[in-house]
Amino acid sequence: MPSADTIRENLLEERPGRGTPSGDGSEVRAYGATSASSGLVPLTLTRREPQADDVEIDIEFCGLCHSDVHATRGEWGERPWPLVPGHEIVGRVRRTGSAVRGFAVGDHVGVGCMVDSCRECARCRAGLEQYCERGMVATYGAPDPRHGGEVTQGGYSERIVVDAAYVLRIPAALDPAAAAPILCAGITTYSPLRRFGVGPGRRVGVVGLGGLGHMAVKLAAAMGAEVTVFTRTDAKVADAAQLGAHRVVVTTDTAQLEAAAGTLDVVLDTVAAPHDPNDYLSVLRFDGALVALSLPSGDMPPVRAGALIRRRLTYTGSLIGGIAETQEVLDFCAEHGVAPQIEVVTAESLNEAYDRMVASDVKYRFVLDAASLRGAGAPSRREQ
Amino acid sequence: MPSADTIRENLLEERPGRGTPSGDGSEVRAYGATSASSGLVPLTLTRREPQADDVEIDIEFCGLCHSDVHATRGEWGERPWPLVPGHEIVGRVRRTGSAVRGFAVGDHVGVGCMVDSCRECARCRAGLEQYCERGMVATYGAPDPRHGGEVTQGGYSERIVVDAAYVLRIPAALDPAAAAPILCAGITTYSPLRRFGVGPGRRVGVVGLGGLGHMAVKLAAAMGAEVTVFTRTDAKVADAAQLGAHRVVVTTDTAQLEAAAGTLDVVLDTVAAPHDPNDYLSVLRFDGALVALSLPSGDMPPVRAGALIRRRLTYTGSLIGGIAETQEVLDFCAEHGVAPQIEVVTAESLNEAYDRMVASDVKYRFVLDAASLRGAGAPSRREQ
Repeated sequence: MPSADTIRENLLEERPGRGTPSGDGSEVRAYGATSASSGLVPLTLTRREPQADDVEIDIEFCGLCHSDVHATRGEWGERPWPLVPGHEIVGRVRRTGSAVRGFAVGDHVGVGCMVDSCRECARCRAGLEQYCERGMVATYGAPDPRHGGEVTQGGYSERIVVDAAYVLRIPAALDPAAAAPILCAGITTYSPLRRFGVGPGRRVGVVGLGGLGHMAVKLAAAMGAEVTVFTRTDAKVADAAQLGAHRVVVTTDTAQLEAAAGTLDVVLDTVAAPHDPNDYLSVLRFDGALVALSLPSGDMPPVRAGALIRRRLTYTGSLIGGIAETQEVLDFCAEHGVAPQIEVVTAESLNEAYDRMVASDVKYRFVLDAASLRGAGAPSRREQ
Repeated sequence: MPSADTIRENLLEERPGRGTPSGDGSEVRAYGATSASSGLVPLTLTRREPQADDVEIDIEFCGLCHSDVHATRGEWGERPWPLVPGHEIVGRVRRTGSAVRGFAVGDHVGVGCMVDSCRECARCRAGLEQYCERGMVATYGAPDPRHGGEVTQGGYSERIVVDAAYVLRIPAALDPAAAAPILCAGITTYSPLRRFGVGPGRRVGVVGLGGLGHMAVKLAAAMGAEVTVFTRTDAKVADAAQLGAHRVVVTTDTAQLEAAAGTLDVVLDTVAAPHDPNDYLSVLRFDGALVALSLPSGDMPPVRAGALIRRRLTYTGSLIGGIAETQEVLDFCAEHGVAPQIEVVTAESLNEAYDRMVASDVKYRFVLDAASLRGAGAPSRREQ
C-alpha cells in the first residue's frame, strides 16, 4: 500500500505513461488541483490494490458538487495538495476483495461523500456514519486511518478502491450518469425530508434551485408533498414548475414573501450565499423547521429568537446522510422515476464547468464523463 | 358586563371607597401602570360578575415576572393603559359559576399566563393553547373576545374572575406563595425539558440564573438530569450548586466554555440581554437543542449554520406551556418537593422590586403579597 508521501509524489506531476499497476496498487488518470490557484489539471494517482473487503470500481461518471469548487480553490481553508475532488461516483465493479459479498464484477455501483468511518461509535451503529464521533473519512482530501493515513482522492479519476461497506448499489432503473448526483445532492435533501416526516399533506419549501434545490423539489414532490420554491428571480419560475413545484415565491418581491407567511411545515435552505434566515422562518407554520444544507460563505443576519419562541420553530441543519439512507434514496429514485437533471461534461471542460457553477449557469448538475479522462479520443478501458 | 371603556375609565383613577359590587361586577383594588412612565400606582378596577363557567378568585399571591416590567414600562411597544400586570396568580376560590365542576369555595387555585383561547383550533385541541391559532388571551393587556373585548387585567389585584377551563389546582403540598412562580417561570422551563425528553442520563445546560433559570435547574435536577449552569460571574457558582447544579461554567472564562464543548443534550437559554447563541451551540452534543425562552432585548450575533449542519443541532424556542401541562408541572413540583425560591414583597415596594429585578438583585423571584393591596394595615378580606 503506498504511503501518503508516495501518493503525494505521484500526484505532483502527470505520469500518464507509467505503465501497468504494480503489486502495491495501480496508476490511474485523474483531474485535480495542485494548489488553490492551479485550477483542475491532469494528474496520475495510485489506487491501492483491493484488500479483502474492498471493491475496485471503474468509474463511469462523477457529479460536480459546489463543495468540489470550494475545496479545490482553497475556499474552505488549506488542503493537502494535490486534491482530486468528486464524491458523486458511479461506475462498474472491476474487482472485489476475497471477503466481499453482494457485489459482483460488472455491477453498477456508487460511492458518495464518505469511504469509511469508525464503525463503532453510537452514531455509526445508528446508521449516521456521516456524523461519526471520530469523523467520517471523506471521499477526497481526508486522511484514511485504516489505510496508512493516506489522503483520500475522489471521483474525477478512472478508478477508485473503496471498502464494500461504503459502496452503494445503483438500481438498474436509474441512468448511470443521472444517478451520480443522487449520491450527494440527492441524499442531502432526502435525509431531512425523511427526518421531518414529509409526505402527502405536508408543505415543503425549497430555497434556491441549484443542484440540491432541484433534487429537493423532485424528491418532496415524489413523496406527495406540496412544494413551494423560493427564488430570487422570475427566470426560474417556469423551471420550478417543470420540476414539480406547486408554487413559486420570488423573494425579491416582498409582497410574495409576506403572502407565504406561516404556510409551510419544512423549508430546506440550499443557498450558500449570505441571506436572511428570518425570511424563511417567517414562512413556517407552528412547529415548523428551517433546515440549513449549505455552509454559508459569509455571515448571515441574526436569527430573531422571538419567532422561534412564539411559534416553536426549529432552525437546524443536516449533513448528507448515512450509508443505509443513501441506498434508500437511490432505491426511492428508481421506484419513483426521480432523476437529477444533468449536463454531461468532459475532463477538458471541467474548469469552464466550475466557472459556470459559480455563475449558477447549470441546470442543474454537471456530471463528468470519466471516459474523457482516458484521452481526447475514445476511452481505452483497460481489461483486468 | 362592563365595556372596555368602562374598565378603562374605572382604571384611570383610584376609587378605593366606591363600595360594594354592583350586579355588573365588583370593584377591586390593584396596582398597575397608567403610562409607560408612571411606574406602578394604586388603581381600582372592575371584575365581571362570575358567569356560569367562571371561577372568582381571592388572590393571595402574585409572582413578579420580567415581562411585567417590560410591559408596564412600554418596552414591548404601546399598551392599552392602564395596565395591571401579573400572571403568576395563586388564591382561593371565592365563588363559582353554576356550570363549574371540580372547584369549590376555599380551594387553592392558580392562574398563569392566559385566561382563554379559541378552544377549537388544532393547537388548542392538542393542549397547546399558548400557541392558539387565533391567539391566546393573555392574563393581562389582551382584548378578551368572549367578554366583550374588554382588556384583561392581571394579578396585582385583590380578585380575578377566570373561566374554569383556565384555572389550575394548587396541590396542598405546595406553599401558596412559592407556588405562584411555577405558573410562568416553572411551566416555561418544564415544557421544553419534557419536549426534549429530559431525565436520568441526560445532560442539561441552563443559561442564566434568574427566575426562569433557577427553576430550570431545580426541575431538571428533579427529573434526574445532570445540570450545568452557565453564568457570567463567579458570584453565582455557590448558589447554582445549592439549587442542584452539578457543574457551573463561568462564561467569561473562555477556557471553561471550551472545556464544556460538545457535552450537553439540551440547553435552556433564559437570558434576555443580547449574547452569543453560538457559545451555547458549541456546548451541545450531536442532535442537541438550544432552546430560547426569553425574548432578546436586542440583536444577537448571527448563528453559524455550520454548527447546525455538522452536528445536526437544533435552535428553537418555547413559550410557556398549555393548561394541562401547567397542571402537570404544579403536580410535579408537589410530588418532588420543588419550590421556587422567593422573596415576598408588598404593594408599596413594587417599584423598588422592579428596579431590583432589572439589576438582577433577586433570589430568584419576587412574589407580591396581595393582602398588602388592601391597605397598610391588616387585610380586610370581604366576605361573600
